[in-house]
Amino acid sequence: MPEIYKQLDALQDKLENHYHDMQDMEFTVQEGKLWFLQTRNGKRTGTAMVKIAMDLLKEGLIDEKTALMRCEPNKLDELLHPVFDKDALKKAKVITQGLPASPGAGCGQIVFFAEDAAKWHADGHRVVMVRIETSPEDLAGMSAAEGILTARGGMTSHAAVVARGMGKCCVSGAGAINVDYKAKTVEIEGVVYKEGDYISINGSTGQVYAGEVPTKVPELSGDFKELMDLCDKYTKLQVRTNADTPHDAQVARNFGAKGIGLTRTEHMFFEDKKIIAMREMILSDTVEGRKKALEKLLPYQKADFKGILEAMDGCPVNIRLLDPPLHEFVPHDAAGQETMAKEMGVSVTDIKKRVDSLAENNPMLGHRGCRLGITFPEITAMQTRAILSAACELKKEGKDPRPEIMVPLIGILYEFKQQKEIIEATAKEVFEEYGVTIDFEIGTMIEIPRAALTADRIATEAQYFSFGTNDLTQMTFGYSRDDIASFLPVYLEKKILKVDPFQVLDQKGVGKLIKYAVKKGREVRPELRCGICGEHGGEPSSVKFCAKIGMNYASCSPFRVPIARLAAAQAAVEE
Amino acid sequence: MPEIYKQLDALQDKLENHYHDMQDMEFTVQEGKLWFLQTRNGKRTGTAMVKIAMDLLKEGLIDEKTALMRCEPNKLDELLHPVFDKDALKKAKVITQGLPASPGAGCGQIVFFAEDAAKWHADGHRVVMVRIETSPEDLAGMSAAEGILTARGGMTSHAAVVARGMGKCCVSGAGAINVDYKAKTVEIEGVVYKEGDYISINGSTGQVYAGEVPTKVPELSGDFKELMDLCDKYTKLQVRTNADTPHDAQVARNFGAKGIGLTRTEHMFFEDKKIIAMREMILSDTVEGRKKALEKLLPYQKADFKGILEAMDGCPVNIRLLDPPLHEFVPHDAAGQETMAKEMGVSVTDIKKRVDSLAENNPMLGHRGCRLGITFPEITAMQTRAILSAACELKKEGKDPRPEIMVPLIGILYEFKQQKEIIEATAKEVFEEYGVTIDFEIGTMIEIPRAALTADRIATEAQYFSFGTNDLTQMTFGYSRDDIASFLPVYLEKKILKVDPFQVLDQKGVGKLIKYAVKKGREVRPELRCGICGEHGGEPSSVKFCAKIGMNYASCSPFRVPIARLAAAQAAVEE
Repeated sequence: MPEIYKQLDALQDKLENHYHDMQDMEFTVQEGKLWFLQTRNGKRTGTAMVKIAMDLLKEGLIDEKTALMRCEPNKLDELLHPVFDKDALKKAKVITQGLPASPGAGCGQIVFFAEDAAKWHADGHRVVMVRIETSPEDLAGMSAAEGILTARGGMTSHAAVVARGMGKCCVSGAGAINVDYKAKTVEIEGVVYKEGDYISINGSTGQVYAGEVPTKVPELSGDFKELMDLCDKYTKLQVRTNADTPHDAQVARNFGAKGIGLTRTEHMFFEDKKIIAMREMILSDTVEGRKKALEKLLPYQKADFKGILEAMDGCPVNIRLLDPPLHEFVPHDAAGQETMAKEMGVSVTDIKKRVDSLAENNPMLGHRGCRLGITFPEITAMQTRAILSAACELKKEGKDPRPEIMVPLIGILYEFKQQKEIIEATAKEVFEEYGVTIDFEIGTMIEIPRAALTADRIATEAQYFSFGTNDLTQMTFGYSRDDIASFLPVYLEKKILKVDPFQVLDQKGVGKLIKYAVKKGREVRPELRCGICGEHGGEPSSVKFCAKIGMNYASCSPFRVPIARLAAAQAAVEE
Repeated sequence: MPEIYKQLDALQDKLENHYHDMQDMEFTVQEGKLWFLQTRNGKRTGTAMVKIAMDLLKEGLIDEKTALMRCEPNKLDELLHPVFDKDALKKAKVITQGLPASPGAGCGQIVFFAEDAAKWHADGHRVVMVRIETSPEDLAGMSAAEGILTARGGMTSHAAVVARGMGKCCVSGAGAINVDYKAKTVEIEGVVYKEGDYISINGSTGQVYAGEVPTKVPELSGDFKELMDLCDKYTKLQVRTNADTPHDAQVARNFGAKGIGLTRTEHMFFEDKKIIAMREMILSDTVEGRKKALEKLLPYQKADFKGILEAMDGCPVNIRLLDPPLHEFVPHDAAGQETMAKEMGVSVTDIKKRVDSLAENNPMLGHRGCRLGITFPEITAMQTRAILSAACELKKEGKDPRPEIMVPLIGILYEFKQQKEIIEATAKEVFEEYGVTIDFEIGTMIEIPRAALTADRIATEAQYFSFGTNDLTQMTFGYSRDDIASFLPVYLEKKILKVDPFQVLDQKGVGKLIKYAVKKGREVRPELRCGICGEHGGEPSSVKFCAKIGMNYASCSPFRVPIARLAAAQAAVEE
């Protein structure tokens, strides 16, 4: 039917030119006649989406702004992570389903403990870490694994947040899996999988497969780079990254991050010798005891900060002082408590007592953040010393370190003033010792509702605001991220909530506080830099909101940097 | 020196007439000459304060408004509680110091368990309950005791709040006492006190005395009543009470409360048979199981509500639906778990599993408040049925019950709508069954920052707002009341906070949210009734704040009603 073909080809061109987009057309040929039934813009994968937009741009069918608007930010995610081989996937068997907590495909042998993950990985195995839930002690293992599967925890559980930060795939809250740590087995729907058995997980869908499903690493094509360049041309909102290691900083920089919006210092304490010194600090009864332990920590911290500042040379690096409750760092097992007793020359009973005394009813609302720095000012002094010593050394080596020191969990102006005094006094000492001076800023996280409500007071002292929207969402809604699983599903099902507010920023409530704080802060300090560093910093609608209310930057985990860049550019175009 | 005396007497009159207040004068007589060194308004006890003000008023030296302003609201507290005999107190030995958690003096024999307190009390002993901390299970014991002494907990711990509500004296957070429940002893500074030993505590100062220090009950004099009548003449803000029992309601009514601002239903569940049914409800896996248990609870609840509505006949009674996390109700001990296993015909392991599954990381931010009513709508239905059935029965008996049903912990308009639908549907059923109709209102507690921020949305459905400033303070500051003891003392010492924000309402932060919510709520519902029912409802500066922003009432524990009435009247005079 060469005639029909010619007609079809012409019509197809005409429709594509009319809609300026790839068309998904339905037609039929009946009794030698071509009938067009319907046409609509075609659905596409992330890769195709970018290719089509850039092709249409190059063909002159659409302009740059339209090309930007044609791409859906979240779909870029597919381009950045490994995916399963399509043919292999067809044959694979789904054995259970969890939450799609961190995108990408991962395949490896089951291990249950962080140490085993690290050991097997060192021996050349690919592993998937399977846990009931993860804690900061599992970080090294998670880092060594291809992916993480947990029985408990939501989209913002420890496993999910850390995995997204690392760019590891993760399926969390797979309630049907029964982990037996003692036997090193996991039972799923009646089948028992042992340590060493292969398993595959898809963190983009939440599906879990038995056996080995091959994965492939996607290439970042030229089209992708061109799209990102286009973003930079239009965006007003800068994109930074949340990174705690030189490696993450480098990954994000390669993705186009313009600095670090959040370096959490707490993860740095979990490696072997550091955790002993950290525990000694926490378990000490006296200022002297704490200072002795902090002196041991100082060189580790300095080295960590030096690595990060070096990887981000010439770009701002916003470092948050110690934030989590101390209870998270101390040993809860007998062996760990014995080690500490020996190390500190006290009885196990004493250690146990001190550990127990740190337990809190609601740790999220307890002794953490700047409350630690205020009750233990020597911690703030040590961390400041570590940050600025690292910067001084780099400067002497001819580098351009740009640290920012951020005081967390401020709710009262006087908290900030008190911490700022310690930071400034320590800075003076360090600069004298090194004989160089570093330009640095002291800012705060706005994550307590009261900080937002009194932003005009806090901005009299703070040089910048970084909105910690995870905590701000927790306190504005009164939801604990760790406990939300018991009612969130019902809320979504009954349409009381349209989306999980920890994933998509709640503009009506939390957003109102943020907008108010930006406005009030700039009333007293017009040049006040405002950024967001919560999980929302990588979610398109939230990034657009931040752009629209005039924030200076959004900061997100490295693998979401391209998504945030596109969303930010779109916000500028929409304006 | 009759001449000097005459001079002195004349001058003293002149000064008192000049200052219109009792004077504290210093003078000396040197070489036969009278010298006046200084004079100032005299300090006085609460009783003297009231007497002097009313005397001056009667003498025509001051007017009514001045008489009102001359009295310090907090000093009324002394008039309402037992005090130690002054002579005996001089000989008494202070053995330790805790927080002055609930005013008054108490003396009795030491007991450590609620059951013992009740038993000893029934046997005619006066007892002081000594605990590490208290929980809802201790209520009956606390009620039977003369006072409560705890090792842990702040001014807003369970013990403190409940004791203030009951008008019992309480010393909390006495860190130096070491309670040994097994041995039934408490060691204080090296001395061991056994069950049955006498101890005396002063809840107004936090001091603890060894042995028996006699107390005396103060009389409410005619002056006091006259002062209260004067308050009513000027006040714009009404005073209600927080009461969970007919007894408390009656006490408060005698003190002049115009209704109940908060009836918590949770305390009602802790008596013997009720707690079994309550636990059965919580531990059930199915809707049917829960409904069966709720049917057992219904008659108990109805009787409780009937008693309270009757005691407050003709006055509004605001009843809050179930609020605390379910974990607080279930048995954590082996014996309790066995009882429930037997009762429900399941294994102890099953019970234990269910109990464990209810544990939360941050219960304050977890599955509680209306989140319970939404996930388990049958609870809301049962409580509504109990409230309205009680009201219908009273109406048929010729009474005038005025219930208000309050949905707690609202953060989203749709939460409220969903609960309101259940309440209205149940009301319709109950009214048809009884053949009578009760006028009642459905309102909400504003205690989540997001509720305040979206007050204009919530007021489209809610008929009144009751500000729960305890929770609102917790979430606005990000402070857990139960964990604040680890940093609050340092905050007060370093002057980061001037006062404990759980005692004195923070007007700069929390107050800003409240003011905003009242304003926004009345924009859509001009007649919106607004009240406060947190602990702050009995604190003078907080009550004045509420009056100034146009609230309709403040609600406080019965023994603070006179204080709130005076503060409210002063606010009106100040305006």
